[in-house]
Amino acid sequence: MESELIAYLRKRIPRHPLLRLGPGDDAAVLHLAELDQCVLTVDMLTDQVDFELKRVDPRRVGRKALAVNLSDLAAMAARPLAGVVAVVLPRRGGMQLAVELFEGILPLAEKYNLAIAGGDTNSWDGPLAISITLIGQVTAAGPLVRGGARPGDRILVTGSFGGSILGRQFDFEPRVEEALLLNQRYGLHAGIDVSDGLSVDLAHLAEESGCGAIVRADDVPVADDARRLAEKLADGSTPLAHALDDGEDFELILAVPPNEARRMLADQPLAVPLSAIGEFTAESGLWQLDRGGSRRPLVPRGWQQEFD
Amino acid sequence: MESELIAYLRKRIPRHPLLRLGPGDDAAVLHLAELDQCVLTVDMLTDQVDFELKRVDPRRVGRKALAVNLSDLAAMAARPLAGVVAVVLPRRGGMQLAVELFEGILPLAEKYNLAIAGGDTNSWDGPLAISITLIGQVTAAGPLVRGGARPGDRILVTGSFGGSILGRQFDFEPRVEEALLLNQRYGLHAGIDVSDGLSVDLAHLAEESGCGAIVRADDVPVADDARRLAEKLADGSTPLAHALDDGEDFELILAVPPNEARRMLADQPLAVPLSAIGEFTAESGLWQLDRGGSRRPLVPRGWQQEFD
Repeated sequence: MESELIAYLRKRIPRHPLLRLGPGDDAAVLHLAELDQCVLTVDMLTDQVDFELKRVDPRRVGRKALAVNLSDLAAMAARPLAGVVAVVLPRRGGMQLAVELFEGILPLAEKYNLAIAGGDTNSWDGPLAISITLIGQVTAAGPLVRGGARPGDRILVTGSFGGSILGRQFDFEPRVEEALLLNQRYGLHAGIDVSDGLSVDLAHLAEESGCGAIVRADDVPVADDARRLAEKLADGSTPLAHALDDGEDFELILAVPPNEARRMLADQPLAVPLSAIGEFTAESGLWQLDRGGSRRPLVPRGWQQEFD
Repeated sequence: MESELIAYLRKRIPRHPLLRLGPGDDAAVLHLAELDQCVLTVDMLTDQVDFELKRVDPRRVGRKALAVNLSDLAAMAARPLAGVVAVVLPRRGGMQLAVELFEGILPLAEKYNLAIAGGDTNSWDGPLAISITLIGQVTAAGPLVRGGARPGDRILVTGSFGGSILGRQFDFEPRVEEALLLNQRYGLHAGIDVSDGLSVDLAHLAEESGCGAIVRADDVPVADDARRLAEKLADGSTPLAHALDDGEDFELILAVPPNEARRMLADQPLAVPLSAIGEFTAESGLWQLDRGGSRRPLVPRGWQQEFD
């Protein structure tokens, strides 16, 4: 890592009990004793795909780069431990950009008691790319995986969906605490976070579990942003379509056995609402149940990487 | 990660005792019980800076992306455990490129018993960037850090230096086994791997230790590649200058107390030569001792990231 940036980070990063040796050596040294299982996740964000650096404060980009990774830990019900940050910066103004990114990363890291252990800084003539890798601790309740849903399990979701492009895509709160609490207190079968879209990520979860899923359209919690966006675009797309397909909500989809689901819905143990939107089925595929009971295929339409 | 690539990796990645859950979920799950301390390192390589994708087989790029990270583990004397790979691919031919990168990564991972736990795949209109993060295990001998050199310590190096651009920059063997053996068998004070250049990285080690260093020019092991490159370029640069400044040798620089250094040099316990090239000094700065005993400043001239 570039020496000026190391000097900045050494001053800026608070002491952390896990961190035996922070930025500036060939690797960071972490104290991980008494850890049985951990999770490891990496997510890279790139300019002009995940954000437009021309239009957004780099601190929000840095925050988002960490938040999407924290959301992956939430999806595994893992407690954040430590992370490293790799960036490739445009040459002009790279140092200032790096500092601004970290000024978005570090407050969120501190909030989740995450040790920023180090990183790698590069520069080139291309646009910004930022890659964050996190280690999380699997709790006594075990990791929450995608493959555990069973037919009959209820589909529960946190919060509401759609229209994240109006701002929530940057400022969302990763559901770390929510996932830890739910995984500890209830018998969850499976979970995923919604990055690509409610319909796509539900399809991922169902497929990994060898199930299908049926969604009651009327029960999908539609965000106010989804309504605002539908109105603003006025292209015929409905708020529900935005809720199902927009993505970057970073809410949780959970597969929960019926009795446990009833208990969770009655308890409502989170500050955000928990809603039941349907159930997993033995039959594969995604289905949508409309008001009146007519059933039709639900085509997953979220974000997909485009390459051949 | 893109589903086609996940399918490829799930078939291709061998079982590994550490890996409880591999690619395809929100994070990988690792079994790390009985681990006391670990190291965490990340390195990103980018097209047109670290390699030219037009001129080099992507498998060599993938291999190098992992090897530079393994070299960082070597510099800490840590045993490779697990890693994740994040890439941003050009849209055209991205899938094939990703597979070729992994075909360079996976054989080297297997050689070092490293679990490839997962990753993230993105695409854009820009050039290739690849970022690998590794976890390594700190052994009972403790981590080898940059800050432990003391005045009077001998400067020992593995192998030879210079001219890596002729091919060794891709095909070098990270000194993982060498570092583990030396750290276990001898009382080392500090270590670093040579990525930016022998002179620059020696300066980093000295600075982190609050020391200076004096190098006996005649004792620097000059690689045959350094001689070949000097001859080929015919620009007046000497093989010694290439050895001191070229970088990407990925050999080790070690700070070793005199008695221990004598024992190591007599034992020569590695398949590659161990050479003493000078010593650390209380006085700061880097010095070069030429034949005949004249002393002059050694200006570190290796690779530096360029941004402002």
